[in-house]
Amino acid sequence: MALSSDELNFLIFRYLQESGFSHSAFTFGCESAVSSLAISGPDVPPGALVSFLQKGLQYLELESNLNEAGTDVDGDFRLLTPHD
Amino acid sequence: MALSSDELNFLIFRYLQESGFSHSAFTFGCESAVSSLAISGPDVPPGALVSFLQKGLQYLELESNLNEAGTDVDGDFRLLTPHD
Amino acid sequence: MALSSDELNFLIFRYLQESGFSHSAFTFGCESAVSSLAISGPDVPPGALVSFLQKGLQYLELESNLNEAGTDVDGDFRLLTPHD
Amino acid sequence: MALSSDELNFLIFRYLQESGFSHSAFTFGCESAVSSLAISGPDVPPGALVSFLQKGLQYLELESNLNEAGTDVDGDFRLLTPHD
Repeated sequence: MALSSDELNFLIFRYLQESGFSHSAFTFGCESAVSSLAISGPDVPPGALVSFLQKGLQYLELESNLNEAGTDVDGDFRLLTPHD
Repeated sequence: MALSSDELNFLIFRYLQESGFSHSAFTFGCESAVSSLAISGPDVPPGALVSFLQKGLQYLELESNLNEAGTDVDGDFRLLTPHD
Repeated sequence: MALSSDELNFLIFRYLQESGFSHSAFTFGCESAVSSLAISGPDVPPGALVSFLQKGLQYLELESNLNEAGTDVDGDFRLLTPHD
Repeated sequence: MALSSDELNFLIFRYLQESGFSHSAFTFGCESAVSSLAISGPDVPPGALVSFLQKGLQYLELESNLNEAGTDVDGDFRLLTPHD
């Protein structure tokens, strides 16, 4: 299943609103024209962006922890590398 | 693995920049103070937010298409419901 | 007396805040770095930008209504020309 | 002559654009709906906001430098008081 641009922008817009980034939400609403989308707001559960991302990371971690034989290894998985 | 607020905000900031939403990126950079984060920009691959989300959706689709017996069924999976 | 850039930006910033343009005020505060200015907010009277502009227009109208002999004529003065 | 809200907002919008505050101009254009105004952009001379304000300050300085007898005094006139 592919994620359309509009769907992604709507998820981000909702995240900005839910997280108190009201100025960013306003500007993004204008710039992406997300508010004119035919997506039903109430149908999108709160925290949707975060929960989809967590699922994705869980899956990636799983993949990186499986070695070629398919056995579980204790891999080291980090999303972003802090800058020292 | 949990996704920190800072990591999430950085992924969104990068998405906004990469997708040409320059005004939203500017406002979000200010409002979330994401530009002062100790995350190394070059370490984050382009399109990171989108690829993590796609992974998450793939996983969710997989889960929704597995019935209780663990067999694959042809489930209907949609991220967002269009508003009629 | 010249109006410095910082002074002008501060007047605009205050106008945006006072007029309920909270998102614009936020973005302008960031972009112009006006919030870091060493100008004492309480010293600037409310509506300062508008009252200075009104003075300027009054003066310009006066000038445009005085003919060369210094007598008052009924001139036609408009700030902006509506677009037909 | 009174300055309408729309005229004032248009002058500010133009100032933001002309001064390189592109993000602020974008957000203000959305928030004030200034871009939908029936004002003809080309009719507004560049730097209009600044020149009107300068006129206003010139006038105010003139007024503050005239004492009651109508003679010119060397008054001290400052727009904004720096914060020490």
